[in-house]
Amino acid sequence: MITPQMTAFAVPDMPLVQPGDDLVALIMDALAAHDESLQDGDILVISSKIVSKSEDCFVDLYTVKPGAKALELAEKVNKDPRIVEMVLQESKSISRAVPGVLVVEHRLGFVSANAGIDQSNVDDSGHHILLLPIDPDASAAALRQGLQERLGVTVGIVISDTHGRPFRRGNVGVAIGIAGLPAVVDLRGEVDLFGREMLASVEGFGDLLASTAHLLCGETNEGRPVIVLRGVPVADVEHGLGADMNRDPAHDLYR
Amino acid sequence: MITPQMTAFAVPDMPLVQPGDDLVALIMDALAAHDESLQDGDILVISSKIVSKSEDCFVDLYTVKPGAKALELAEKVNKDPRIVEMVLQESKSISRAVPGVLVVEHRLGFVSANAGIDQSNVDDSGHHILLLPIDPDASAAALRQGLQERLGVTVGIVISDTHGRPFRRGNVGVAIGIAGLPAVVDLRGEVDLFGREMLASVEGFGDLLASTAHLLCGETNEGRPVIVLRGVPVADVEHGLGADMNRDPAHDLYR
Repeated sequence: MITPQMTAFAVPDMPLVQPGDDLVALIMDALAAHDESLQDGDILVISSKIVSKSEDCFVDLYTVKPGAKALELAEKVNKDPRIVEMVLQESKSISRAVPGVLVVEHRLGFVSANAGIDQSNVDDSGHHILLLPIDPDASAAALRQGLQERLGVTVGIVISDTHGRPFRRGNVGVAIGIAGLPAVVDLRGEVDLFGREMLASVEGFGDLLASTAHLLCGETNEGRPVIVLRGVPVADVEHGLGADMNRDPAHDLYR
Repeated sequence: MITPQMTAFAVPDMPLVQPGDDLVALIMDALAAHDESLQDGDILVISSKIVSKSEDCFVDLYTVKPGAKALELAEKVNKDPRIVEMVLQESKSISRAVPGVLVVEHRLGFVSANAGIDQSNVDDSGHHILLLPIDPDASAAALRQGLQERLGVTVGIVISDTHGRPFRRGNVGVAIGIAGLPAVVDLRGEVDLFGREMLASVEGFGDLLASTAHLLCGETNEGRPVIVLRGVPVADVEHGLGADMNRDPAHDLYR
């Protein structure tokens, strides 16, 4: 076997997560049932969806009263005004609004469709939506601490979401919360093979981790919401936050 | 061990690639030297840099005569006019040009900084640059066929590049050439756990593979330009091309 080798597997048979569930316990139980355990240095990429569910970030659309701005915008983008109301409440600003598409700057600073509000795999009522976690970095830190205290392992945590993007087709995984890991790794100042200084190389480490996990977790179900990455080379630099992945709007040529 | 499990490793000790080199032979030799072999279903993510080198996509800057448009643009973006001339020759249009940044639509259809022209890890002359492969899909197909004929294995190939992106900090891996694999996987029409139809889910499979490999290949050297991914679940859909990853400009709200 060639080393270094990176491996990735899904925590098997995770139950459907309910509000109030203890994710650390669910992950521990699911691993133990398969005689698997975590190791120091493992990275857990956890779908924001199950974090939101455990933190009860559900909204019952029957309780949402769309305001004038939501009603107007809903007409323009041809979406449910109650969902548009919640998108507005979750956002700092609107980036693009055309029929079928509503892209906003989320209160957490990233740019995404519909403020990350989720209608798929939420529940069977048909009238609940799921918001992103209030503070994904805090959620990540709490999960990391819980695993440390109860299993004695030191792991990294990524809370992942799924984003579309300009220019390129297809969704990819992104990191919206991070604990125990760098978010971006700045290679500027290092030299290449021929001694030339790297001028503009910053690696989107958190998003690379989330996209790797995305290959195993899929999108059509919630059955594999926790992916364990083992053996990933991690730069020995300061730990970061999900917010570190957000480009400063002043340095963004495409807002 | 939990299955399915995905593993990834770098083909070890790849030599520095020179124009005319036979990449299939280099990969075979490097694997054989470590008693490793490829398996049916493996996916090889290969840095566009070594493909370009083997195909001799070098340009000697001493031979480049910048035209009037390049001279003007070079002033604006504060870059070497000869490099700007080559960026223009490799591009269909300019997307953004501000001091220090030149983003273009490449002739291959994707949007990237400097048309993917590479100055790092190119050689020690200090006056050569490296263009992207002429036709990365054709390069991928030839590598796939070569491995099939000479090793008897059926693999998927991704030719990868490194892109920055709007909204988010940090570079990620992208697929610019593909053989034997889908590029994007369209999940629209599938149903979620609660029977709700997925409306807008297209997975950027090729880019997910490239970003996974990016975790192992790094950016500051050319020492790990070939990453083998084993055990990746691949959708049973039509094979694609690198160009499939390009969003139709008419459907892109951020050009």
